[in-house]
Amino acid sequence: MRTSFAALLCDYCLEVRPGQQVVVRSNTLAAPLLVALQRQLLEREAWPLLRTELPGQAESFWAAARDAHLDAFPPLELVEAERTDASLAIQAPENTRALAGVDPARMARAARARAPVREAGLQRRWCVTLWPTPAGAQQAGMGTADFEAFVRRALFLDREDPVAAWQQLRERQARLIERLAAARELRVEAEGTDLTLSVAGRTWVNSDGRRNMPSGEVFTGPIETSAEGRIRFGVPSSPRGVEVAGVELEFREGVVVAARADRGDDVLQATLATDDGARRLGEIGIGTNFGIDRPVGAILFDEKIGGTIHLALGRSYPETGGVNESAVHWDLICDLRDSGRLSADGEPVASMR
Amino acid sequence: MRTSFAALLCDYCLEVRPGQQVVVRSNTLAAPLLVALQRQLLEREAWPLLRTELPGQAESFWAAARDAHLDAFPPLELVEAERTDASLAIQAPENTRALAGVDPARMARAARARAPVREAGLQRRWCVTLWPTPAGAQQAGMGTADFEAFVRRALFLDREDPVAAWQQLRERQARLIERLAAARELRVEAEGTDLTLSVAGRTWVNSDGRRNMPSGEVFTGPIETSAEGRIRFGVPSSPRGVEVAGVELEFREGVVVAARADRGDDVLQATLATDDGARRLGEIGIGTNFGIDRPVGAILFDEKIGGTIHLALGRSYPETGGVNESAVHWDLICDLRDSGRLSADGEPVASMR
Repeated sequence: MRTSFAALLCDYCLEVRPGQQVVVRSNTLAAPLLVALQRQLLEREAWPLLRTELPGQAESFWAAARDAHLDAFPPLELVEAERTDASLAIQAPENTRALAGVDPARMARAARARAPVREAGLQRRWCVTLWPTPAGAQQAGMGTADFEAFVRRALFLDREDPVAAWQQLRERQARLIERLAAARELRVEAEGTDLTLSVAGRTWVNSDGRRNMPSGEVFTGPIETSAEGRIRFGVPSSPRGVEVAGVELEFREGVVVAARADRGDDVLQATLATDDGARRLGEIGIGTNFGIDRPVGAILFDEKIGGTIHLALGRSYPETGGVNESAVHWDLICDLRDSGRLSADGEPVASMR
Repeated sequence: MRTSFAALLCDYCLEVRPGQQVVVRSNTLAAPLLVALQRQLLEREAWPLLRTELPGQAESFWAAARDAHLDAFPPLELVEAERTDASLAIQAPENTRALAGVDPARMARAARARAPVREAGLQRRWCVTLWPTPAGAQQAGMGTADFEAFVRRALFLDREDPVAAWQQLRERQARLIERLAAARELRVEAEGTDLTLSVAGRTWVNSDGRRNMPSGEVFTGPIETSAEGRIRFGVPSSPRGVEVAGVELEFREGVVVAARADRGDDVLQATLATDDGARRLGEIGIGTNFGIDRPVGAILFDEKIGGTIHLALGRSYPETGGVNESAVHWDLICDLRDSGRLSADGEPVASMR
């Protein structure tokens, strides 16, 4: 798996070229993939710059960080972000709840201070992916070997030619976007759900696996005042390392007017109270990856499940034309596979399988 | 051990100040020390920048490196070396012979290309130390727990106040240097050994544990044409990852005119043939650390053994006044504790215990 995974990241996601400096951020649990990447980057005459965290290092940072560390960043990190040709982040959790005890306000404060580093990184080629670990498997409710096989399918590493499979997904999504670009109103219907929103004039993005591996979604930013109705999100999510499940939202003129959750209601209410933008939608996305057949508690995978849609409370992506601003961007997933339906201007959007 | 070790590195070796960026290079085997260092650097309001290698990463680099990687370096590494406030290298071998199979010519070529990075790093505060690993213990011929206790004694971490112990060593060495600064000729006598050399007008350096932890030596560069006689080095060393033992050298007017080794004679001969400077001495050092009572196969420790002297073939340190130039700097150790003697202008140099 590590060899074909590393090749996919080098040749499809990052399109590595000789002489490039490629920063790879992960931790020691991803060692097999990291060593394979080092070798393949060297074979492509690039410079691998591995930034490997130790088990417990992130948790320990939050335990020991002083105020000075929340309101600034090490200047070298900005220089690195500005001069790197490409950066790859590999999630490989040792414990998916490692930061559950960290005060969200401190995390938000550090995230604000680090905005220049983040912005600089986004100007370069970048990609986020995941290496299967026992903790990731536990989160998914699977044995580790089964989770590895699941990740392989999600990344099309079980296909004969993974790069070709991702190119086919891109073409399939391009056809879906052709259909959606003409639509004005979308309607989501499912159990406990009947929501309409407008996407008139907005731009759809073809997320084809080059920035998220896996991807498999198309998304846009809905008109900020358009959402009307109610929706139930059956797939749990963990916006701040704490699980929130069974979220139900009611919208009037784009604003959340009622909200509850079966689990994690306090997190839901606190998030909605963050700022004005947190009560409006910043994104609607449609999952198209049928290699992902069930939620595993990692948003990188769950929002791509073929046959689901997701809405994000908070910040929109400017490239969509969306203008919602917020410190929040929380993806909530609604599964349409059993008895749900997405329609555009009254016509069902065909299955994308 | 990790807590007092980290404190010694922060407060004595690097004298860390708030806001400083401190790069720490090591590998995952040093994890306990690295996590303690991260915490203590944060507590001192510095920025820990950990660069942790994975097991096998260095070996894998040499296996996969292309010509392009031997003749250049990633530009970000030079920027980092120039902008770091302090850097710490922690040796923590997984296998002390990991690079025994790498062509020395390729290593030398890469070392030449990386000279600007090395030079930039030496302009800043820096320190080299060692974390006890099973491989380090094996090299020393000890059990791992015994080796840990040995390292603790070598670093004065068994003392009530390690920083005070290092300050005392510095004062003790300062008095030794007062004595040596007046000397013109040194003579080394031991089994198979009777060597004289001149240090007239040269500067002695007080190596007090701030750049090497442990240290405990004073050294200078002998007059390059002065060495006369013969010397046997009873302590083995491993200049290129291959052990060389029982080295005997004969000098005339500062130049090696005969050389043999009980083990690794081919390495000895190849090293002497590197360049003109490799056949002359660049350093004479006197070990003063009586916490180190036996060689362990790590030069960082062995050259500091209280009661030994070492001579280096090759490059001298400019701050001593030495002018020998060479790609080689190979420390060879002669144990004077049993029946040997070091004298200066005919008077024995007193034991420094």
